[in-house]
Amino acid sequence: MKLASFTLKGNKNPLYGVIRNGEVFVPGTDFISIHASLRDVIEANALEQLERSCNGTKAYSLNEVSLLPPVPNARRVICAGMNYQKVYPVDIDKPPEPENILLFSKLEGTLVGHADELEMPPGEAGLSYDYEGELVCIIGKGGRYISQQDALEHIAGFTIMNDGSVRDWQKQSIHAGKNFANSGSCGPWMVTRDDIPDVTEVRIETRLNGDNVQSASVREMLFPIEELICYISHTIDLKPGDMIATGSPDGSGGSLNPKRYLRDGDKLEIEITDIGTLKNRVCSQQFMGFEKQKMSV
Amino acid sequence: MKLASFTLKGNKNPLYGVIRNGEVFVPGTDFISIHASLRDVIEANALEQLERSCNGTKAYSLNEVSLLPPVPNARRVICAGMNYQKVYPVDIDKPPEPENILLFSKLEGTLVGHADELEMPPGEAGLSYDYEGELVCIIGKGGRYISQQDALEHIAGFTIMNDGSVRDWQKQSIHAGKNFANSGSCGPWMVTRDDIPDVTEVRIETRLNGDNVQSASVREMLFPIEELICYISHTIDLKPGDMIATGSPDGSGGSLNPKRYLRDGDKLEIEITDIGTLKNRVCSQQFMGFEKQKMSV
Repeated sequence: MKLASFTLKGNKNPLYGVIRNGEVFVPGTDFISIHASLRDVIEANALEQLERSCNGTKAYSLNEVSLLPPVPNARRVICAGMNYQKVYPVDIDKPPEPENILLFSKLEGTLVGHADELEMPPGEAGLSYDYEGELVCIIGKGGRYISQQDALEHIAGFTIMNDGSVRDWQKQSIHAGKNFANSGSCGPWMVTRDDIPDVTEVRIETRLNGDNVQSASVREMLFPIEELICYISHTIDLKPGDMIATGSPDGSGGSLNPKRYLRDGDKLEIEITDIGTLKNRVCSQQFMGFEKQKMSV
Repeated sequence: MKLASFTLKGNKNPLYGVIRNGEVFVPGTDFISIHASLRDVIEANALEQLERSCNGTKAYSLNEVSLLPPVPNARRVICAGMNYQKVYPVDIDKPPEPENILLFSKLEGTLVGHADELEMPPGEAGLSYDYEGELVCIIGKGGRYISQQDALEHIAGFTIMNDGSVRDWQKQSIHAGKNFANSGSCGPWMVTRDDIPDVTEVRIETRLNGDNVQSASVREMLFPIEELICYISHTIDLKPGDMIATGSPDGSGGSLNPKRYLRDGDKLEIEITDIGTLKNRVCSQQFMGFEKQKMSV
């Protein structure tokens, strides 16, 4: 099942629904009165009821709506860094490989939805603005001290993230570089776990203006999903709707030779098998503030 | 004016009010119906109206209530690291001093309120569990690209934080060490900016079981509050209720010789001039889960 959060054009009120054949079906008003957001549905373990509630209800064409990150009110977006082997050019002999899981987080305001514009920071910061295509796990059943063996059962579904990164600021602190406003994106929707029988079979492909720049199997993660969930849940109770971004494979702009950072007008596409393609266009900040242009979905 | 968020014993519903002479006065129901949380009051720039709305209303003794962090639903808790000169013992000649502002964040679930128990992580993680007393700015008026000159005007008030840190995990990633469940605390309340005419005059004193372990003037910050706000607002729009923890002075347990990490039953007190004293007791995890003991306020 494909689930999305969205707004109707000209309306800020977030809605959610089930995607079937290019349309979003919204649940009945009774269902919405109990579950105000997709996070609430996940928390109530009511995905099957949501599917039933969307039978024969009002539907919107995907072109009529503005997609939001699938869980726009996620309590936490926790990200793993350096989780794929990377081939660094020229000056470094041995690619760095972390001895342990490296975490950071993205705070509210950093992620836009599918087809929304990525905000290139103005001035010097924009000169090292980079993309990172990633698979994201959305937690269903919360918990603390989750074992690796049980970890996958705590996942409600998967989505895609562009972990937008301002490399020059990232050198100052990981937090700063990873938390520029609207610098990342997430979506287009969430695919429930039952639709992805073996997540290690899926591939991530990132295209920049049509050129393939990242291509990897999820199997290449240095610390697989089970380890990430186990590790994070040793620090804190995971909650329904929490997002765990699992790291980006080799091929982000800063690792290319020569480096290729994002520029105004660039089209970024991140495709993950069985989920879909997250598409965004880069917009330099002087053009922001006008009514935002949406790409056609 | 002193403002607090709290719950009544045996009730999870968060309330807020104005503190006068050891009592919390709650606003009238009309006011609450418009402003559901203290964050909403800050966002509506309605602090004066709140004060008026609390005249002659119901009051609770501070001993009747459980104080929460003053803005329990803050969108972001952004923290500055290494923001005071630190004297490291013996083996390091020159104390490290950052070339730039270092940021990290604390996510939902990491901070308890005044008088609540600090959760010492079980097992090995608990062996390097440390305290850090800090001044926190609570943003009133949001904004992007805030100048240093205007920065203080964006502050609604101040509070105190114990930036609880698990040092062994912090070596793996700053995020991990700073984001253990209930490892930090914040409160006891927020004091509005007009009650602290010159914030550089205030002092931070941390006491562990009555012994003075941290003592510094806010003036000793390496990057003052104005620079922190200016820097952070270059990455993202600051929003009303956002909390900025400004770093901890020398004297946390890991910098003592010999090291003195937190232990079960330790009493931690962080006092900041013109704000008050944030008190918490450390509780090792095997004792958690029973009904929590509150210290008397």
